[in-house]
Amino acid sequence: MSELLTKAKAAKECARTLSQKTTEQKNQALLVMAEQLLAEKDYLLEENAKDLETARANGTSASLLDRLTLTAQRLDEMATGLKQVVELPDPIGESLSTHTRPNGLHIEKVRVPLGVIGMIYEARPNVTVDASSLCLKTGNAVLLRGSSSAIHSNIALVAVLQRALEKAGLPIEAIQLLEDTSRETASEMFTLNEYLDVLIPRGGASLIQSVIKNASVPVLETGTGNCHLFIDRSARPEMAISVAVNAKTQRPSVCNAIETILVEKQWAAEHGKELLEALFEKNVTIAGDKQAQAFDSRITPASEEDWETEFNDLNVALKIVNSCEEAIAHIYQYGTKHSEAIISEDATNVALFLNEVDAAAVYHNASTRFTDGFEFGFGAEIGISTQKLHARGPMGLEALTSTKYLVRGNGQVKG
Amino acid sequence: MSELLTKAKAAKECARTLSQKTTEQKNQALLVMAEQLLAEKDYLLEENAKDLETARANGTSASLLDRLTLTAQRLDEMATGLKQVVELPDPIGESLSTHTRPNGLHIEKVRVPLGVIGMIYEARPNVTVDASSLCLKTGNAVLLRGSSSAIHSNIALVAVLQRALEKAGLPIEAIQLLEDTSRETASEMFTLNEYLDVLIPRGGASLIQSVIKNASVPVLETGTGNCHLFIDRSARPEMAISVAVNAKTQRPSVCNAIETILVEKQWAAEHGKELLEALFEKNVTIAGDKQAQAFDSRITPASEEDWETEFNDLNVALKIVNSCEEAIAHIYQYGTKHSEAIISEDATNVALFLNEVDAAAVYHNASTRFTDGFEFGFGAEIGISTQKLHARGPMGLEALTSTKYLVRGNGQVKG
Repeated sequence: MSELLTKAKAAKECARTLSQKTTEQKNQALLVMAEQLLAEKDYLLEENAKDLETARANGTSASLLDRLTLTAQRLDEMATGLKQVVELPDPIGESLSTHTRPNGLHIEKVRVPLGVIGMIYEARPNVTVDASSLCLKTGNAVLLRGSSSAIHSNIALVAVLQRALEKAGLPIEAIQLLEDTSRETASEMFTLNEYLDVLIPRGGASLIQSVIKNASVPVLETGTGNCHLFIDRSARPEMAISVAVNAKTQRPSVCNAIETILVEKQWAAEHGKELLEALFEKNVTIAGDKQAQAFDSRITPASEEDWETEFNDLNVALKIVNSCEEAIAHIYQYGTKHSEAIISEDATNVALFLNEVDAAAVYHNASTRFTDGFEFGFGAEIGISTQKLHARGPMGLEALTSTKYLVRGNGQVKG
Repeated sequence: MSELLTKAKAAKECARTLSQKTTEQKNQALLVMAEQLLAEKDYLLEENAKDLETARANGTSASLLDRLTLTAQRLDEMATGLKQVVELPDPIGESLSTHTRPNGLHIEKVRVPLGVIGMIYEARPNVTVDASSLCLKTGNAVLLRGSSSAIHSNIALVAVLQRALEKAGLPIEAIQLLEDTSRETASEMFTLNEYLDVLIPRGGASLIQSVIKNASVPVLETGTGNCHLFIDRSARPEMAISVAVNAKTQRPSVCNAIETILVEKQWAAEHGKELLEALFEKNVTIAGDKQAQAFDSRITPASEEDWETEFNDLNVALKIVNSCEEAIAHIYQYGTKHSEAIISEDATNVALFLNEVDAAAVYHNASTRFTDGFEFGFGAEIGISTQKLHARGPMGLEALTSTKYLVRGNGQVKG
């Protein structure tokens, strides 16, 4: 049997027993995992060095190298992260609703694990530990498929986590890594409905699209964000500028950063130059429509592509609009339903925007950068869902659960 | 542009306005739909007669003919069904949670429509009206793809529903039917992620499997049910027999009927013959394992296939087991996670069974036949989900909704 089938089958078997473990057993294992990570720091850094060496030899970019790198401090942070997951309430077993039918049947809805989670992700080895901890806390078995560039780091991390599971008396098959990182094996994983309950891809748009397109296993789409900030005529200028600069420049590489600013004409006439100066000062490159270009010669003409692109960098598209409706229509056309914001003091516009804009998170007078499981107070995040089924927006522990109905009777039959 | 693309695009446009309609507007439309169905009875029966004529000429089975048939009474029932949907609470706009973060951000989670629902279903024309009403109530546009055998009935029903929408002032694109029922067009629908938010297949196992296998649009799997009844040694005999007969024979063609009965050895020794007589009296054919066969010469040997099969008929497989654990292991191996029941007076066994059996609905001392949106008190049902994501078990109106976060601030930026 192939590595994939052997491990997938073991994961399914393991999920059955894992679903019955108590919160105490799972928390104890998470604490041992944290200890083990720290105890085996040297081994982990040595194995990570092998990946870094290969990456450097392949001419990997500095930013990718940085994401691949483990340091003593980053391992400390991972251990701290594990302890934080211990502190979170265990959703499994939670009773979500109960009602009694006229025929006396008592119907209770309870939270249960999903079963086996297939996690397909790119270079960052910290995802190995993050995802494992969230899956374990929710009683799910996880089958990890990381990228070949992080293979030594991932093998070492999973070996350490499995040693911790063993010490804690939990089955090591709760956390498994595919050592075979070929595309063919990943494709086989996409259709392993018999063993996998859900696939979660984490990474670039092309990885996610490939999973969505080819998987028959249900997918939790985590996503790309072409996010917008709309500044209407009533917006307070200092607030609008501060939010625009924050949402664009505080960390431009992430999905909840904005890519297009829509400004109502009247506001632009009064405060446009001030906004532009603030952006230029942060080295933002701006592509604008005709009206925007009139404000500053440094604004290049925006192409259709600019409205569609998630720059993930210090670039922004700028459009002058005549109304809140026009802003909403632009977002409808180009948005990816991730995070959208309005800066406004006009109650009518705010209500219109919050009601009509269809996105995981719609903001009034705040930066889109808050779309995040930690900022939302979930204490954890397995990703940000941009799909509409199951979970939408930042996904915490609950997104890794399903439900079942327990129906208790005293002999009821259907008439 | 093809019929599919034209209608899918129109549905997406329509969904945007439909999401903003009030409960009153949607209820008014549902009432007009009910009136219109009754007003156009003759036309609907005439069109249905064309389908029946073709079906008869093709040698269609009596049971399929029955499912295809519209009668004045069935149209009355459809109209009544529409009025019942009016009475249900509108989930759209419901505030599901609110919390305020330490930084003052106020985060509210509200229910919103899914958007556009693609419904792919087999012969029964009542699904056309049922699905349309539930989608409309939840502010979703629906694109219906029925079977070619019901095409005249479906075209007429949708024409009538659209005339009602028009009278009620709602866009007729809220409910559309694909007149092209070719397989190729259905396959194109599977990957129309740009326009469709979810696909719901309703019908036989092969239809559902084909959608799951080939769709990149998220699917709500409605399912096949290989359901079990386990009678343990402590079961009250009259209750066990009454539930077994009900769950098997009350309507054997449906997914929540049982297909295998597991009986603990001691109970079988005392009451097995009584159970068999009750089943034989209802003309049930029984295939059993070696131990079961010893009870009655009419029991044929059960093959591996018998344990796996959803008979949907007056057949049942019978196995004698030594313990609750053995019953749970059998269900783990052969069950489809739909509905499973235990008849027992033993608290330990009951707890073990309810905890360990992984299914949409797990019953104690009641018939599995209650797994149904109406029996669960949801007032409606779009299908019974056998998947673990988004919705599990009977799906009422809530299963046709998503959520979004509304985040209200006073200028918060991320530090």
